[in-house]
Amino acid sequence: MISFARGVPAPECLPVEELADCARAALLADGRTILSYGSPSGYEPLRDWIAQRHDVQIERVFVTNGGLQGFIFFAHRFCRAGQRVLVERPTYDRPLKILRELGAEVVPLDMDDEGLDPSALEAALGNGPKPAFLYTIPTFQNPSGRTLSTARRRRIVEIARAHELLVLEDDPYGLVRFEGEPEPSLLELEGGNHVVYTSSFSKTVAPGSRVGYFILGPELRAELEATSTSTYITPALLGEATVYEFMRRGNFESNLARVRDLLRARRDSMLEALEAELGATGATWSRPLGGYFVWLDLPGTDTVELLGRASDAGVTFVPGTDFGGASSTARLAYSFVSPDEIREGVPRLAALLPSTATI
Amino acid sequence: MISFARGVPAPECLPVEELADCARAALLADGRTILSYGSPSGYEPLRDWIAQRHDVQIERVFVTNGGLQGFIFFAHRFCRAGQRVLVERPTYDRPLKILRELGAEVVPLDMDDEGLDPSALEAALGNGPKPAFLYTIPTFQNPSGRTLSTARRRRIVEIARAHELLVLEDDPYGLVRFEGEPEPSLLELEGGNHVVYTSSFSKTVAPGSRVGYFILGPELRAELEATSTSTYITPALLGEATVYEFMRRGNFESNLARVRDLLRARRDSMLEALEAELGATGATWSRPLGGYFVWLDLPGTDTVELLGRASDAGVTFVPGTDFGGASSTARLAYSFVSPDEIREGVPRLAALLPSTATI
Repeated sequence: MISFARGVPAPECLPVEELADCARAALLADGRTILSYGSPSGYEPLRDWIAQRHDVQIERVFVTNGGLQGFIFFAHRFCRAGQRVLVERPTYDRPLKILRELGAEVVPLDMDDEGLDPSALEAALGNGPKPAFLYTIPTFQNPSGRTLSTARRRRIVEIARAHELLVLEDDPYGLVRFEGEPEPSLLELEGGNHVVYTSSFSKTVAPGSRVGYFILGPELRAELEATSTSTYITPALLGEATVYEFMRRGNFESNLARVRDLLRARRDSMLEALEAELGATGATWSRPLGGYFVWLDLPGTDTVELLGRASDAGVTFVPGTDFGGASSTARLAYSFVSPDEIREGVPRLAALLPSTATI
Repeated sequence: MISFARGVPAPECLPVEELADCARAALLADGRTILSYGSPSGYEPLRDWIAQRHDVQIERVFVTNGGLQGFIFFAHRFCRAGQRVLVERPTYDRPLKILRELGAEVVPLDMDDEGLDPSALEAALGNGPKPAFLYTIPTFQNPSGRTLSTARRRRIVEIARAHELLVLEDDPYGLVRFEGEPEPSLLELEGGNHVVYTSSFSKTVAPGSRVGYFILGPELRAELEATSTSTYITPALLGEATVYEFMRRGNFESNLARVRDLLRARRDSMLEALEAELGATGATWSRPLGGYFVWLDLPGTDTVELLGRASDAGVTFVPGTDFGGASSTARLAYSFVSPDEIREGVPRLAALLPSTATI
């Protein structure tokens, strides 16, 4: 089975031996802190590292057991049943599920190749009660791979200010960039009065570290800290301390360069294979400059139906409807599979389509 | 400051160097699994170890980021707002808070030196709608240090069967026994149709491992697994794998013996100091055979008021009202402080009482 479904790093992306040494060194250096209960905001040396990296005070850094757990804390804090929450269409499926379980009215906003459409945001704000917040993944978005342009970032910050709209900027993929200059984050453009920023080390170090973090106001941090205490007393400090030791040794940038190279090769294979197999059909797809995902649109094809046949043929993906997308769309993750598997899997998929071009 | 408030192990209880080696070895042996997303029920080798220890199938083992997180999953599954939940009076304060936030009607059941009173349980069951569940800590209870007698365990299992009452047996302290033969767990007596059992490695290995677990039916595990996936995708596997490696090396029993010795000395100091300082007053206290806590009753004294003066005098504890206890009660934890600190702190506390005996 070739999985374009798994949005996780390939095993060779994981710096196993280095992290093994880091875990041991962290415990030997600071074991009595790491192995006891500690701050509900996370391991202080790591919080300090994150604060310096984002040029904010440590009081604004809140570390959680992975980013999703933090999203839950945030959503429970700001969203009551019946309240509107604005999201991108398509967007990451897990937050969608959490918001629906909270009873939120999820309002999807259209996007295109430049990311979230500011006019869709303005229209939503002009039509209905004030939303609890906007949830956006501006860079190498899950599931679309698209990136919000700098011009649109500025526009969205203006809109947030004008409407006093709370924005949750989720940025787990931003550092996994293959080419081009990084756009400024919404947090950098806005300053943090309306934007809460979240990221994690799942894509830059290892998902199994389960270390996510938030940059937010000190008052909000104190509130979320009360929730994290009531939920798990202290987050799992061993993963946090291991990641911190990895940083302290200066391994972050070199590992990131290595991960980028591994993923760039996969992205290239995916785009080349799609061009070769689907270039002469009506199919369209995104051209991500980083991250894990390509967003495929196969007009006239129901991708849920296609997935059944694809699984039988030994290739999988996630249908776009899981992310609130159209029934003709699909998320292809190139992160977990090798370039060779990609070169084998895309033709396998293309062969199942009614009008595959033969060159 | 001498803290009888902190219900955590003293730093010397933590096997820091051994766990440092275990973390490294675990990652070197199985890093690609540990550092990626994995089972939402936890690290499989550890689940297998737990299953063997409890003589159950691995399908019945569910591992969480500490026991409290698991309690939240359990409470959200079984308790709707307005439903009754039976608890001991006094009981662990964090679950009380969680149940109140869920909107549960918390029904406290009286206990004495033999633990929860079965007739109080029967009275509660005969008076009002069927409760969502009974939450009990039968062994070396937090906060009272009391242990449910074997005869009462049998009686409570009979009552649970007769009323089809769901029981959550929380047993984090049971293995930290200083003397005497262990009582059978409610799970062992009942078999698991009505009893869900939970424990953790916080008191037997290290709280910072953040590894709790549940023994429950396979269908319930599947349900809670869906919740854990939606909450954090995968629990923090590094702590779990480190604990597993600690077990695999055969360190568990020897570490437990070491921890028991360290804590027994503290328990002895506490009971001796209480006898010396308060033996001739009307004060009463529990005589725990294990665990972390002594439950003190100072008739005529308001312990919230006392705490203010005690803090000024350099000694702290937790007032019993935090646990639903009477205003004259207090929880004294002997786990964190040294025997010398205990010998110094108890007289300091006694000196603040109106009728301290002078011998």
